[in-house]
Amino acid sequence: MSNIREVSRVAGVSIATVSRALSHPEKVSKEALAKVNAAIEKVKYRPNMMARNFRAVRAYSIVVLVPNISNLFFATVIRGIEDAAQQKGYSVLLGDTRDSIARERDYTKLVETRQADGILQLRPHVPGESLEPEADIPMVSTCGCEDTPYPSVRIDNAGAAGEIVQYLIGQGHRRIGVLAGLRDNPHSRDRLRGYREALHKADIPYDPDLLVNGDFTMGSGLMAASHFARMKNRPTAIFSMNDEMAIGCIQGLKSAGIRVPEDMSITGFDDIEFARYSDPPLTTVAQPAEELGRIGFNTLLELIEGQELQQTETVLPYEFIVRKSTPALS
Amino acid sequence: MSNIREVSRVAGVSIATVSRALSHPEKVSKEALAKVNAAIEKVKYRPNMMARNFRAVRAYSIVVLVPNISNLFFATVIRGIEDAAQQKGYSVLLGDTRDSIARERDYTKLVETRQADGILQLRPHVPGESLEPEADIPMVSTCGCEDTPYPSVRIDNAGAAGEIVQYLIGQGHRRIGVLAGLRDNPHSRDRLRGYREALHKADIPYDPDLLVNGDFTMGSGLMAASHFARMKNRPTAIFSMNDEMAIGCIQGLKSAGIRVPEDMSITGFDDIEFARYSDPPLTTVAQPAEELGRIGFNTLLELIEGQELQQTETVLPYEFIVRKSTPALS
Repeated sequence: MSNIREVSRVAGVSIATVSRALSHPEKVSKEALAKVNAAIEKVKYRPNMMARNFRAVRAYSIVVLVPNISNLFFATVIRGIEDAAQQKGYSVLLGDTRDSIARERDYTKLVETRQADGILQLRPHVPGESLEPEADIPMVSTCGCEDTPYPSVRIDNAGAAGEIVQYLIGQGHRRIGVLAGLRDNPHSRDRLRGYREALHKADIPYDPDLLVNGDFTMGSGLMAASHFARMKNRPTAIFSMNDEMAIGCIQGLKSAGIRVPEDMSITGFDDIEFARYSDPPLTTVAQPAEELGRIGFNTLLELIEGQELQQTETVLPYEFIVRKSTPALS
Repeated sequence: MSNIREVSRVAGVSIATVSRALSHPEKVSKEALAKVNAAIEKVKYRPNMMARNFRAVRAYSIVVLVPNISNLFFATVIRGIEDAAQQKGYSVLLGDTRDSIARERDYTKLVETRQADGILQLRPHVPGESLEPEADIPMVSTCGCEDTPYPSVRIDNAGAAGEIVQYLIGQGHRRIGVLAGLRDNPHSRDRLRGYREALHKADIPYDPDLLVNGDFTMGSGLMAASHFARMKNRPTAIFSMNDEMAIGCIQGLKSAGIRVPEDMSITGFDDIEFARYSDPPLTTVAQPAEELGRIGFNTLLELIEGQELQQTETVLPYEFIVRKSTPALS
């Protein structure tokens, strides 16, 4: 399939000029436009759907769909989005969707009625339960999961989970509990794969009894603690799929008389600010939350402006942070 | 000064009809409109500025100005706003202003250009440093302070602070440190008044050495802890003006070898979810955060719809919550 590079080569103009000719033909000289059009014809170039349906008249606002506005990680992503949007003269419409596709559809109407130019989706994509990409609605997923069927910005969740679990194994643990999110949550799925791969590499068999599903809230971490506390053959460490559940779990373990980290190590995920202030401070993975927001917005802006994306999936680096919740097993 | 009630009495129609005649004259019968207009003339009624400048054409969206989107208390207020807005078919434009009046003005332009119908301000009002009310811009303050020069919804900050300090005195403390927000922050001012009044009632002299100013972040609570730890004549309890600073302070005190609550009691403010999960769990004041958001939105909607407000200041009840951070002084 021909692409914008070929058009540029055949037309003898820069890629930027081709891009501008597609999105803002009024800003390109007549000669350049003629060359680009001829080249498009010659190489049979078809701009992708997103790019083709760009809008000349804009609302200069975008809609951000947030599953839970009280989740600190999302709040930080939103701060990054807001920053990037303000720099480009865009305002941010916030939709607190509480994982409801009906609410998501309500907010999508703002784009259909041209009150907003595109959508940034913060909920990871679940086939059959999530908004599907539509040709005339620019949409980008940020802080999402693998296999998102539209442009996305994320970290390598499986890799990060694998690194945490490998570290715990290196600290001497072989019986490692996993405190996951909801069963069908794509982050749970990607991170569980990382957990299983790390066990596999270390020749530790996977024991489904060590898996507890929460819902990413502290309350669910508290509940999970009682499950781990009651086990006959308790784990010596717990890999929690976010910091909130780890913090809830620590409180539950302490109430059950289990000392953290002396009797049980624990790790989090996200590095929300409270991770540093928990007792003990949490070993965790820092997602570049503001950066996910900023790059998510900039990617969406490229779609809105009718540019062709250089890549449909951007994977940002995470950071592994060791704190006091994971001493070597004695 | 005549009011809408008098107009209603003289016109012989209901207050609702007068209100409708002012905001949606097309929805009122010609006879009723004539009666209302005659009565307005007779009693020399002048609708208040906010009400008079209602807009017939609406954007059905509002702007929420948030000083810090990563602050969990604000996130919960926003959730309440969002809920109420969605029920009325309004969308929420979020402006993360970081206490910058320049950013606040940028967002105000959305109302001036009719992309939004009104403003909900979450930053407490500081004379000379905050947006002032303008006749043609419906604006409501929520979770703000005393002496706000436009309609506001809040709790009794001084009263709540007084109740906390009175409780600490009842637990046997006479030397009570205070971890305040920034010096010119109106919440600091209102809550400090409550602290001083409670001391005064108990005949405890006010000691300015016991006052440390933070900025409502956990980091500033951590810094404050080292001040308290180094004091020769340490307080036996600390009244922190929010939960985040209390949580940071607890970590700092523990690092300095001061046990909480055995050596020092501490209280928070707001009751964010983490207050329950801190070690020890925090005694604090629960602001009705979602309710502040909901009622703030509904008040703003009354202004947008050109209704006359029944009251320009709504004070909601708070809840005092005792947890393990404040045992009786032994």
